[in-house]
Amino acid sequence: MIVEQLIGALGAETVLRGDACDARYLRDWTARDEVRPLAVVLPRSTAEVATALRLCDAAGVGVVPQGGLTGLVGGAMPLPGAIALNLSRLAPAPQIDLAAGTATVGAGTVLQTLQEAAARHGLTFPVDFGARGSCQIGGMIATNAGGVHVLHYGMMRAQVLGLEAVLADGTVISSMRDLVKNNTGYDLRQLFVGSEGTLGVVTRAVLRLVPSLPARVVALLRLPDLAAAHRLLALFRREGPEPNAFEAMWPDYYAYGCDVTGDAPLAPGPGLIVLVECAGKDADALQQALLETLAPALEDGLVEDAVLSQSEAQAQAFWDIREANEALTTRFPALLGFDVSLPQARMPDFVETCRAALAARLPDAPFLCFGHLGDGNLHLVATDDGNGGFDRAWIKDFVLQAAGRLGGSISAEHGIGTDKQAWLGLSRSEAEIGLMRRIKRALDPNGILNPGRLLPPTPATMPAQHTERVPT
Amino acid sequence: MIVEQLIGALGAETVLRGDACDARYLRDWTARDEVRPLAVVLPRSTAEVATALRLCDAAGVGVVPQGGLTGLVGGAMPLPGAIALNLSRLAPAPQIDLAAGTATVGAGTVLQTLQEAAARHGLTFPVDFGARGSCQIGGMIATNAGGVHVLHYGMMRAQVLGLEAVLADGTVISSMRDLVKNNTGYDLRQLFVGSEGTLGVVTRAVLRLVPSLPARVVALLRLPDLAAAHRLLALFRREGPEPNAFEAMWPDYYAYGCDVTGDAPLAPGPGLIVLVECAGKDADALQQALLETLAPALEDGLVEDAVLSQSEAQAQAFWDIREANEALTTRFPALLGFDVSLPQARMPDFVETCRAALAARLPDAPFLCFGHLGDGNLHLVATDDGNGGFDRAWIKDFVLQAAGRLGGSISAEHGIGTDKQAWLGLSRSEAEIGLMRRIKRALDPNGILNPGRLLPPTPATMPAQHTERVPT
Repeated sequence: MIVEQLIGALGAETVLRGDACDARYLRDWTARDEVRPLAVVLPRSTAEVATALRLCDAAGVGVVPQGGLTGLVGGAMPLPGAIALNLSRLAPAPQIDLAAGTATVGAGTVLQTLQEAAARHGLTFPVDFGARGSCQIGGMIATNAGGVHVLHYGMMRAQVLGLEAVLADGTVISSMRDLVKNNTGYDLRQLFVGSEGTLGVVTRAVLRLVPSLPARVVALLRLPDLAAAHRLLALFRREGPEPNAFEAMWPDYYAYGCDVTGDAPLAPGPGLIVLVECAGKDADALQQALLETLAPALEDGLVEDAVLSQSEAQAQAFWDIREANEALTTRFPALLGFDVSLPQARMPDFVETCRAALAARLPDAPFLCFGHLGDGNLHLVATDDGNGGFDRAWIKDFVLQAAGRLGGSISAEHGIGTDKQAWLGLSRSEAEIGLMRRIKRALDPNGILNPGRLLPPTPATMPAQHTERVPT
Repeated sequence: MIVEQLIGALGAETVLRGDACDARYLRDWTARDEVRPLAVVLPRSTAEVATALRLCDAAGVGVVPQGGLTGLVGGAMPLPGAIALNLSRLAPAPQIDLAAGTATVGAGTVLQTLQEAAARHGLTFPVDFGARGSCQIGGMIATNAGGVHVLHYGMMRAQVLGLEAVLADGTVISSMRDLVKNNTGYDLRQLFVGSEGTLGVVTRAVLRLVPSLPARVVALLRLPDLAAAHRLLALFRREGPEPNAFEAMWPDYYAYGCDVTGDAPLAPGPGLIVLVECAGKDADALQQALLETLAPALEDGLVEDAVLSQSEAQAQAFWDIREANEALTTRFPALLGFDVSLPQARMPDFVETCRAALAARLPDAPFLCFGHLGDGNLHLVATDDGNGGFDRAWIKDFVLQAAGRLGGSISAEHGIGTDKQAWLGLSRSEAEIGLMRRIKRALDPNGILNPGRLLPPTPATMPAQHTERVPT
């Protein structure tokens, strides 16, 4: 019925069903199995998005917005009995405004496409991470994506100057302005950023760009422990040069990264490996500034060993070790990943608590921990050591409970989706969740938008079927 | 009735009425006349705020949240028949967390108190402006305050890590976290920031602090025109050093500022005066970096004349000229001020349109224009030249219409309050205003919070009485 209505309004080329649905719309990066929705709708314009939503809202049929399907919490997996609304076709070439330093993009614009368009004008889009070749701007906004340069530039939330989104009833909310300052009522943009497709469907955006910095120097450092890393971060913040990435790798992760890349600029061993990236006009000046700050730190033992990149190729080689996480699922098919954040003061306690608990259960598994230390964001990966201690449910609950107990967030970057709904109360109070529900009801009274995601499900909105996923 | 209930619940020391109301609660900086509310409530805790709101909500009595009453759009003026809820007593000493680089403050904490507390720890709270000795954090959050360092650090919105607010029904929404990254559902904080007390009452916040930079150098420059200033801004962004303020003064404003301060580092005359501030570790290095970028700009005529501060006293003296706007109301009692923002490409058109229109009506009045050029934010001040052309209503409508027509915002900083409600549609679409109303109804179904402010009033929420104000 709804599918016929959609075909009638949008045409059979836009509304795919049955075998016409390409498999890429039927599962995300982490799902084992495909899920078949009622239909996959591929609108070519904001007006078509509005039409699709209006029809589904009137029929009370659920809609799952989809971007590049690179999410890690199941938030864009199709639902049986619902429509998958894939925004990939909303991808006009990015319009770069040099004077304003902005890019106007569609929800379906791929991150790398935007990055390349900006680079041709000497500009950079500052949010970057491994999925850049597949993830789409609409999904990045809906999930408030982060990445490795949050420390300096902020998350997606900080990049969105203008936004267009469509409400469940088809109302188009167009705030496509390129103004840095606009104090004229509620900031509706921020409501959609990070709402995981439950409040509206992002269709277009005006994003801020920053000047490209021609040179970067990456330092790889060995420090005695996490406390030393926090002292070093404070030192960089006070003395400069301002780092635009400050990443940490615990010993097992660093050894794994060296193994993947076949490169070990510092010998694997005990202690914490910290990667500091500074960017600017001139590599020599950056080298010198880094050395000035590092020399006394090396002298008094805050830093035990250091190597600075001497070329762009070497800078990239250092990054390759840190970004070896892209290969984790190949090396450890049965992994369980976390993206928590912690207040700085509680981070050592959290790491030690998790390390001890995992070591007790999985004595032969490596302790794979790395993260964006500058933002308090840790990635923890539990792997099966084949000794039978890999109880996913127990590990997941233990790690998320520990993060919650220590004042942290159960998700710094990936979001809630379907994977962390049961634990949302660890990071948000009952009053906060109640207010989220009020807002959800106000914007989507029939509950059609990404039903059963983000907010802990009520029986009425519970997905009809769960599919087994490679947990992350 | 409601006043008796409030006294019963909170005590006579917290609920002031009649002559017990200090005059400072009865009008803001720009109002001519006092307005007497039913009572002034001065809660000492979040729980007392919740009690007051719960009682007022049940009784359907309006509540006007108040901070330091330094707003410029009438948003905190008491309303007859409503309660004034003044948050001044929610002012515990700021708690500075050195490791996290945060301050936990109350809504009533005065900006300068926070700045001084941060400075004692080598840290800075980066939002700053002239009213620092009176304005309070709660009001700054409720109005998303800006100031002179937005270019580098962002507005209040970017500083709020944690927030506590009380809804109209007394529900306390406490999100007092100090996490930089927390992707666990809707960002409720951002909803309250800039909502001008219409969605909830801010009671506490966790704010980010930044390291204090010990040295600053201020350059005062003469440029041929606005286009040159935009080119210079792009040059600084590309070549560095990164400015943390980039302010412009048109000739009449600069002459006025020199007159007020008795200082003229560059002789008043034609052309645009630009003030660039750079801060860092070392004044000599900053001087050199500034000169490196300015030398070629001076050579090719982009900059016509330049003077760099040689001491902190001189840096402050340059700023005093720019900040002479604090004295505008003394010099020009009948002024009409604006705080619009414009896309960079439309700014010259806007300035010329307004200059020509004001010159035609007020041929003998100075054209007082200055602003935060780096953020696209202009302050325009119309003054009476005594020749009869000072038609406030016409000037206000003309300037705001021009900003709207050119894709700008009718308020970059000050907000809407009661002063700009009728023009809100110039900066926000009908769909956006409709969505704001949906959110307002969801959070404050009885419409008790700051009734008649921000959203264009409906007859039911219209303030019962208008008071004449010194227009700004």
